[in-house]
Amino acid sequence: MTVRKLALADASFERSPGQEGDVWTGNVVDQRHGGPITIGYGRYGPGASLDETMAVDDVMIVLEGQLSVTTDAGTVTAGPGEFVYMPKGAKVTIRAHDAGAVTAYVTYPHWQEAAAD
Amino acid sequence: MTVRKLALADASFERSPGQEGDVWTGNVVDQRHGGPITIGYGRYGPGASLDETMAVDDVMIVLEGQLSVTTDAGTVTAGPGEFVYMPKGAKVTIRAHDAGAVTAYVTYPHWQEAAAD
Repeated sequence: MTVRKLALADASFERSPGQEGDVWTGNVVDQRHGGPITIGYGRYGPGASLDETMAVDDVMIVLEGQLSVTTDAGTVTAGPGEFVYMPKGAKVTIRAHDAGAVTAYVTYPHWQEAAAD
Repeated sequence: MTVRKLALADASFERSPGQEGDVWTGNVVDQRHGGPITIGYGRYGPGASLDETMAVDDVMIVLEGQLSVTTDAGTVTAGPGEFVYMPKGAKVTIRAHDAGAVTAYVTYPHWQEAAAD
């Protein structure tokens, strides 16, 4: 695989698996490309939320809006340019604030393969 | 390791190893934290550039400014919210445009350990 530029326009969004909320994900690099990591973009509608037990290590970068991530240990809130690191095994609730949010994510290994296990 | 929020203010910047240019990196999560990936921020001065053969898979997200990444296959240019994916083994020249750039990066595995091999 060669060096690639990736932008939001490259993402084909699908509803995040296993939930009905206004949360959408679009991989731009994943298991189809032969490397070890998945890269993608996420979209959250106003107030949309997602409960997840992390099957992989997931780094979420907030590009627009704000998100809060809640675990047993408390809640962190991130805005543009900030990361939330969600290690494998963490049980999280991700909730967008009133303006919704656009995120990017990097996972190791590929989350779609881990979710299918 | 638990869920963590990470921001630019958490990064302690050091000159990028092996070069003398105005390019600075600051890990915020790495081999010290027990997970598989490194997360950090980068700063490039106006026009600053860096030649590198990638020791790890490296995803660079542009937060401010613009960067061009040149390989034998050509040049890609990325601005805020865009990624450049640089797979292990790629030979790259990263060059900031006139306004410099702020980036974030995620690497698998840990780049500091790979660079020390």
